[in-house]
Amino acid sequence: MDLEALKKDAALRAVTFIRSGMRVGLGTGSTAKYAIEELGRKVTSGELTGITAVATSEASDALARAVGITVEDLDPRPFDVAIDGADEIDPQLNLIKGLGGALLREKLVEIQAREFIVIADHTKIVTALGEKAPLPIEVAQFGVVSTTERLRALGATGELRMNGDRPFVTDNGNFIFHARFPAGHDLTAAERSLKGTLGVVDTGLFIGMATRAFVAAPEGVRELHR
Amino acid sequence: MDLEALKKDAALRAVTFIRSGMRVGLGTGSTAKYAIEELGRKVTSGELTGITAVATSEASDALARAVGITVEDLDPRPFDVAIDGADEIDPQLNLIKGLGGALLREKLVEIQAREFIVIADHTKIVTALGEKAPLPIEVAQFGVVSTTERLRALGATGELRMNGDRPFVTDNGNFIFHARFPAGHDLTAAERSLKGTLGVVDTGLFIGMATRAFVAAPEGVRELHR
Repeated sequence: MDLEALKKDAALRAVTFIRSGMRVGLGTGSTAKYAIEELGRKVTSGELTGITAVATSEASDALARAVGITVEDLDPRPFDVAIDGADEIDPQLNLIKGLGGALLREKLVEIQAREFIVIADHTKIVTALGEKAPLPIEVAQFGVVSTTERLRALGATGELRMNGDRPFVTDNGNFIFHARFPAGHDLTAAERSLKGTLGVVDTGLFIGMATRAFVAAPEGVRELHR
Repeated sequence: MDLEALKKDAALRAVTFIRSGMRVGLGTGSTAKYAIEELGRKVTSGELTGITAVATSEASDALARAVGITVEDLDPRPFDVAIDGADEIDPQLNLIKGLGGALLREKLVEIQAREFIVIADHTKIVTALGEKAPLPIEVAQFGVVSTTERLRALGATGELRMNGDRPFVTDNGNFIFHARFPAGHDLTAAERSLKGTLGVVDTGLFIGMATRAFVAAPEGVRELHR
């Protein structure tokens, strides 16, 4: 069973949590894509009615509209459910997210969700954040070299995410620094100092936000709770 | 004596600190403009040679080039001197800055200055930050209503800075929220929680950064130290 089939399994399970009339946050990336497509199918078939959604990236916004979902702008109203993938998931459902390049918008939407469901294949499970994935940190373009120097002083190594031979630019017009830390570095504890660093817009650390996870492995989909 | 003449007096005093061969940070706003023009005059006349500068806004970048100053991109090298205006100056030379709309770039440059000289007319002196001016807070466009809700939960009232009937957009593509706090609210202590708020890129609080100030009043220019 390939990873794409597993991602889709997890996505379909999460979409069963969406009921008619709900306001939904839509994630970004290859796993969230399956959830958006499945929600669009249920809306188009009439199985779900009165669904409104907010997307966490311009790509997900376009996909959602294309599959028939009503997409709105973000406002302070809570979401009944938000569904998104993750790059790493620890045992407390703390996450590294944002390797898809949309970490700030994802966090802005998902912090307003009553139920934030993470979907992933089993390769994303770690015992401590940073074990496999780099931590994406969204930084202002201006002064980026100095900002990365400040991040190095906090223990980070790494490089800017590239798009060909130029730095990748987020939907918000910023760059992404892919940070790695020494083994044993407690990233959940480092969140405040990283976000507090001059030039940092936000980090891919999602601490205490996810309420539930569906993790797909060849033997089936596991449901995890915080 | 009008305020413009006072601002210029303060600016000219600050520019006397610039020596040939220095790397200089150039501020933004109506007071910094006088300093840029004076530095340009000294460079063009040959009184100063080997000056390189980094500007804190696209407007100051354009002005500096127009008056003959060599402008470079920001990199991690320190500045010998940075010169900029401020919206409020407290007795410890803590500042509110950014009403000109360039707070993030200003902070990114000025944190690298060995000597950061503030220039202002006497109306900018306060006993506590927030006494007269609103605090500009740079926030991501996406989710701005929710972000301002989070700021209100920290005690802020206020509104987005407008440009005609649309929100003003910074050089970094963000909005500016003009925050006011209840009298007695200690803004220097609030800096970390404001910067740590989801959706906030940075605040106009410049704590412990300025090393010297020239404050012009009708009776003359006063020099202040931290």
